[in-house]
Amino acid sequence: MNFSEVSCKEFVSVLGSKAPVPGGGGASALVGAVGTALGNMVGALTIGKKKYADVEADMQRLHKEAERLQGELLALVQRDAEEFEPLSKAYGLPQNTDAEKAEKDRIMEGALKAACGVPFEIMEKCAEAIKLQEEYAAKGSKLAVSDAGVGVLFCKAALAGASLNVYINTKAMKDRTYAEDINRKTDALLGEYAPLADRIFESVKGQLKG
Amino acid sequence: MNFSEVSCKEFVSVLGSKAPVPGGGGASALVGAVGTALGNMVGALTIGKKKYADVEADMQRLHKEAERLQGELLALVQRDAEEFEPLSKAYGLPQNTDAEKAEKDRIMEGALKAACGVPFEIMEKCAEAIKLQEEYAAKGSKLAVSDAGVGVLFCKAALAGASLNVYINTKAMKDRTYAEDINRKTDALLGEYAPLADRIFESVKGQLKG
Repeated sequence: MNFSEVSCKEFVSVLGSKAPVPGGGGASALVGAVGTALGNMVGALTIGKKKYADVEADMQRLHKEAERLQGELLALVQRDAEEFEPLSKAYGLPQNTDAEKAEKDRIMEGALKAACGVPFEIMEKCAEAIKLQEEYAAKGSKLAVSDAGVGVLFCKAALAGASLNVYINTKAMKDRTYAEDINRKTDALLGEYAPLADRIFESVKGQLKG
Repeated sequence: MNFSEVSCKEFVSVLGSKAPVPGGGGASALVGAVGTALGNMVGALTIGKKKYADVEADMQRLHKEAERLQGELLALVQRDAEEFEPLSKAYGLPQNTDAEKAEKDRIMEGALKAACGVPFEIMEKCAEAIKLQEEYAAKGSKLAVSDAGVGVLFCKAALAGASLNVYINTKAMKDRTYAEDINRKTDALLGEYAPLADRIFESVKGQLKG
């Protein structure tokens, strides 16, 4: 099953079940794609408008970037599911003897590293998407500015949601140097882009509440 | 087109286009449904587990509530699109004469009131969903606690995203008493449930980063 190809209703239904995938990582990628698309919509409602002729080239450039990011985030919905399945199996391996235990540890470690790479990549894409929203909110059609505000909220939530999926995997790793390196990079992305998202949201809210 | 029945990919694609619907309200309903489903998944991974026998009845009750909320939020994806179309048409009405202007104002006012009722209802559902996540995070399987954390982030983002879609409609209303009453209720929901969501998220994050 390709989880970006199923209906929204079906995605929500499988997500809410005990099926191991999709989980929080894939859901974050979807919410990031939805947030990115809201910015893209602001651009689509700005492109070709006389009033916004001076930002036409910016909007055309942002459109290409938003389309690419939407596609990459949708692909990550599926990749998160694919990387989680081996980890889910590794958790179930027997550990009755020392040899079994060592073997389980070895397989778990590789599966954990692979599984936390995907949410980290989702975070990087959401960080890029937040930068796009900054331009959409500042330069896009004022009639659609609320959509850039909603978009940035979703990209921020997806960034933070994916971070939990990094932390839950790094927590279980034996290789603490590797784990702490990833945690530091995760903290740095959150520390830079969550406050930026908050500032963009507040500027949009200020315009709307007048 | 029923927007909860199209594929996730198609939803993202139409959302990112200049089509008037879906917009930020419908996207908020979808993200709220995704957030609710993540809590429901924590429950599904807790139900029937010996270790969690003492919360079995709670999990069964929460499951029913989460399933209902998921369905209601998915229905609101579509209702938001249906209520927005008349407003979108009203914006385009002619206003060349005083009579046309008066008629446009009258139609706009009704369409604005109808259009802001849906995001307000989305906010109420997201507030309910945040209360569910509080119980999922506190009582659900510790193996899945990150999913309750991601779920609460999404319900909070959907709550705030829907609020922007209330404000953009109330801002355009002539009936300021009505508009300010809705704004007050919207502020109250945000003021109560956004900080609750933050506390739930921080408690989950604290468990994961150890």
